Amino acid sequence: MSSRHFTPLAAGLPQTVPFVGPEAIERRVGQPIRARIGANESNFGPSPRVIAAMQAAAPEIWRYGDPEVHLLRSALARHLGVPHANVVVGEGIDGLHGLIARLVIAPGDVAVTSLGAYPTFNYHVTGFGGRISFVPYAGDREDLEGLLAATRREERCKVVYLSNPDNPMGSWWSAADLEAFIAAVPEHVLILLDEAYCETAPAGTLPDLDSARPNLIRTRTFSKAYGLAGMRVGYGIGEAGFIAGFDAVRNHFGVTRMGQVAALAALEDQAWLTEVVQRITAARDRIGAIAADSGLVALPSATNFVAVDCGRDGAYALAVLKALEARGVFVRKPMAHPLDRCIRISAGLPADLDILADELPRALKAADGA
Amino acid sequence: MSSRHFTPLAAGLPQTVPFVGPEAIERRVGQPIRARIGANESNFGPSPRVIAAMQAAAPEIWRYGDPEVHLLRSALARHLGVPHANVVVGEGIDGLHGLIARLVIAPGDVAVTSLGAYPTFNYHVTGFGGRISFVPYAGDREDLEGLLAATRREERCKVVYLSNPDNPMGSWWSAADLEAFIAAVPEHVLILLDEAYCETAPAGTLPDLDSARPNLIRTRTFSKAYGLAGMRVGYGIGEAGFIAGFDAVRNHFGVTRMGQVAALAALEDQAWLTEVVQRITAARDRIGAIAADSGLVALPSATNFVAVDCGRDGAYALAVLKALEARGVFVRKPMAHPLDRCIRISAGLPADLDILADELPRALKAADGA
Repeated sequence: MSSRHFTPLAAGLPQTVPFVGPEAIERRVGQPIRARIGANESNFGPSPRVIAAMQAAAPEIWRYGDPEVHLLRSALARHLGVPHANVVVGEGIDGLHGLIARLVIAPGDVAVTSLGAYPTFNYHVTGFGGRISFVPYAGDREDLEGLLAATRREERCKVVYLSNPDNPMGSWWSAADLEAFIAAVPEHVLILLDEAYCETAPAGTLPDLDSARPNLIRTRTFSKAYGLAGMRVGYGIGEAGFIAGFDAVRNHFGVTRMGQVAALAALEDQAWLTEVVQRITAARDRIGAIAADSGLVALPSATNFVAVDCGRDGAYALAVLKALEARGVFVRKPMAHPLDRCIRISAGLPADLDILADELPRALKAADGA
Repeated sequence: MSSRHFTPLAAGLPQTVPFVGPEAIERRVGQPIRARIGANESNFGPSPRVIAAMQAAAPEIWRYGDPEVHLLRSALARHLGVPHANVVVGEGIDGLHGLIARLVIAPGDVAVTSLGAYPTFNYHVTGFGGRISFVPYAGDREDLEGLLAATRREERCKVVYLSNPDNPMGSWWSAADLEAFIAAVPEHVLILLDEAYCETAPAGTLPDLDSARPNLIRTRTFSKAYGLAGMRVGYGIGEAGFIAGFDAVRNHFGVTRMGQVAALAALEDQAWLTEVVQRITAARDRIGAIAADSGLVALPSATNFVAVDCGRDGAYALAVLKALEARGVFVRKPMAHPLDRCIRISAGLPADLDILADELPRALKAADGA
């Protein structure tokens, strides 16, 4: 369906929902999900202090949020040790990625990314008339050499996207490897470094914050370890001139008042974050053990999920996913070969993983017979 | 400040905050606002049932919102009596206006609007490389004849924006006048009818919902009479092919889980809405009386604010606004001549208007001496 009123660019875009939400699965399957461990949400929830702050803010929700997001932006700058002018807050990382694509991609421009990586930046690049140049993963990690080569090979390359730690595989590079990559990327190419999972990464994974570098912007979020996926608050760290550009294109009142309240309270409770990260680590280990009990291999992970290699091809892994779904276990999976041999399981509560432990062997049996 | 990474279009855009928020005024002035009656928020608050629903949802905020916004979209469709496929939910009307501009404006295309009308759609049109063709108000109302003539005169006109009831003047046209306008606009021109203030309009103001018309999209919001400005939930009603186009460009997880919960609860409490509208009507009358006590004329209003004619030029009205601001009274004003002779006062609580009643005479005296 389309409309004669659309621009030629808009009329040519596919209508899509990048991820099918668990609620949509429930509507389709006709039964509730028993273990919601597919969207890399934080089933451990936000800090109790965050919940209290949100509940206290509810009666004041008739007020618009501060369009300058001043308190949260300042708190983030202090927390990160960078100037206020180097931080932008947006409607989740997805919202920021849309704005970044808009700022840097003119029709015909190229973005380099890994084949099978998080697709939302690609969606926005295509949406602004850009082209994606895909680089295959290598050894279940984003291929830094390959990405670098593509930024040099593609004449109209404007941006290279990579995530560290990586989604959907959970793999990561060391800070030193990343720093060498960053130094080697041509200066005219923007590096969009997605650190959505930075809180769960081992020490030595995150490059130092160099907010003066003109061709680097990093994105982080309150949706993962902080447990605020339902509020959509993400932030970017970059050079001040780049950050200022958001004020030319953003939805100025887009970050909700409640989101600002919640994120600020979340940032202030680092003890909760520490505790959640410990629980995530334990859950990753448990997922590994559950996988091993069924003869499957869990990949090492620096994130709040684990990619589990189902040991055969993508069709088989998809059959496993469908069989889990039919049993009320919501997981997701990479779709690009060769990542597609895996299913991706989020670090859930012990009760969620009990259900997984029960149902995975049955799902594998069902997939075998499929 | 800019960045070499920006597209030529993005590099040429002004960095702006369309409206200075009251929090920014407080930071600048160094004292709290005593009467927050400038942003057309609903100081009466959301329904107590909405507050309860939000508080109950806070612990579940680790879950992403439904990207299909299914429950709210269905409830809106039922409430409005239009098919589900004709409704889109977005991150406030501002967010929807940005997406509409993106869908219909290619560089060089033209949008027709009234000089001094709500500026956010203009911001987005400019942001996508479009040009604005301004039509002056006539008699403090948007000039339907003038807007119509401009849609015919401007060769690259793609869209005409108007609001009914109108912001910032509070004026309105009858449904019959609007219907005649809609019928007369050339079919290749999209009509963007902003009905942010529809809940406070008198009977006979809103054209019947004709969701099959290909060149009409209407936008409404939970930010005004429903009292949810801080949650950013707006919706659009339009032809199904146009509505489907949003799925090609929107931030699919952008409408927060909390916003969906709050808006759904708000829609279900129509008794609260009725009560708020009565309080708004009383507040409008009171603002009129306060203005008259100082020899000023309040314009008739179909919205949750009142434009008060300060009786002289724009500089004088600005001096009145500044004098009110110095006294802790936050109001706004139109900036385009001849609307700029007015200040715009939102329907506040009786306590807010008590402060206004105290401070307006003093502010006028201060402005006289300025």
